[in-house]
Order: sequence, then structure tokens, then C-alpha cells
Amino acid sequence: MRLMPTADAAQLDRAFHALADESRRAMVVRLSSGAASVSELAAPLDMSLPSVMQHLDVLQRSGLVRSEKIGRVRTCRLEPGPMRTLEQWIAEHRAIWERHFDRLSDVLDDTFPADPGDRR
Amino acid sequence: MRLMPTADAAQLDRAFHALADESRRAMVVRLSSGAASVSELAAPLDMSLPSVMQHLDVLQRSGLVRSEKIGRVRTCRLEPGPMRTLEQWIAEHRAIWERHFDRLSDVLDDTFPADPGDRR
Repeated sequence: MRLMPTADAAQLDRAFHALADESRRAMVVRLSSGAASVSELAAPLDMSLPSVMQHLDVLQRSGLVRSEKIGRVRTCRLEPGPMRTLEQWIAEHRAIWERHFDRLSDVLDDTFPADPGDRR
Repeated sequence: MRLMPTADAAQLDRAFHALADESRRAMVVRLSSGAASVSELAAPLDMSLPSVMQHLDVLQRSGLVRSEKIGRVRTCRLEPGPMRTLEQWIAEHRAIWERHFDRLSDVLDDTFPADPGDRR
């Protein structure tokens, strides 16, 4: 079995884990339309600021989000790389799996050919 | 903020969580090329059968995998729906975010127009 280098695997672990929570996904969705301060991220969420900071910490350790503090305001943004890595991982393996089903479908077509009268 | 119905959110939580582990991803990759028995899934993994069963349980609760026991053999397969849901979630939000960057890029192009001599 082809296994990816451990660093990539650990990055995928952290990124999938980061998205396995509705509040963290809401933060990512908010950031997908542009940078936001921590209080802007927290505003629509029904949770304490320390909880928001914990979720932000998970997102930052996953690499999906980075933040920068200027004065008293911490501004957060999405990072493109990890989201693209996730999407590629899913797309690649779904493609392999769908080719498998296409082959199965071809076998069924050969075994049970369609009535030529059905073709238009 | 538009929040999805809770059932969808819980399904996304479980599916992202299921993929946040290298061994479980290896099982999904194996199943993406066709159905497999539990011992076929376990063979390339350096872990006990009970651990494999625990990972399989997480995958099944996520909906990504289903299994069927006939006699003594439990056969596992991928389920298309949840993987597609994940891919759509990622693709949709990456698209929003990339449009945001495209607009930013347009602003920069207007502010700092390219030297017409560079165009070919």
C-alpha cells in the first residue's frame, strides 16, 4: 500500500480534525469571505471567548487559519494550502472509487446489453 | 450566518472525524478500489484486529463505509454519499474564498496596472 510521508499524514489528520466541528466550520466559512477579527468570528457563535480561542487554536495548529495581532486586535485569515490538500485527497480517492464503479457498470452492460430499440 | 440543519452538521462532524486518522484513511483508500473483508483491510496495517474493528466502527458510524457479514466473513464497502458531501462542502467554501481573492487581485490590477509592454 502506498502511504504518504508522515508529515503529510499528520497535516491531513489535523486538518480533517479541525473541520470535524460545526463551530470551527462556521469560523472557516466566515473567513472564506475575508479576514476577520476574533470578536467578529465570535459574534455569531453562542460560546464564551475562551472557547472561541480554543477552536481558533485548533484551526491554527491545522494550518487552515493564521492570525496576526496588531495592537489589541487579532486578525484571522484562511490559508489556501491545507484546504486544497484536503480537497485533492478526497477528489483523488473518490475518483479511483468511481472508476471502479464505472468498470462494474461496464461489466453489467456487457452481461445485460440494453435493447437496441431503446437507443435514440 | 447560514447554518446547515443539525443532522447534516452532525454527519459532516462524523465524516471529517473519521478521516482524521491515517489508518482509517488507509482503509478508505483500500476500499476505494473495491470491497474488502476485514482481514484484507487489516493485512497492511500494523495493529491488532480489535483496533481495526474500532476504526471500522468509526468509519461505519460516519456513514463512509458499510459492511455485511455473510457466514464468518464481514465484507466492507465505501458509501458514495458522505464522501461526496465532504467534497462539496470543501469545494463550495474554497470557491467562495477564491472568488474573494480574485476580487482582491482585480483591485490590485486596477491600482497597479501591468506595463502594456508586458502583454503579448
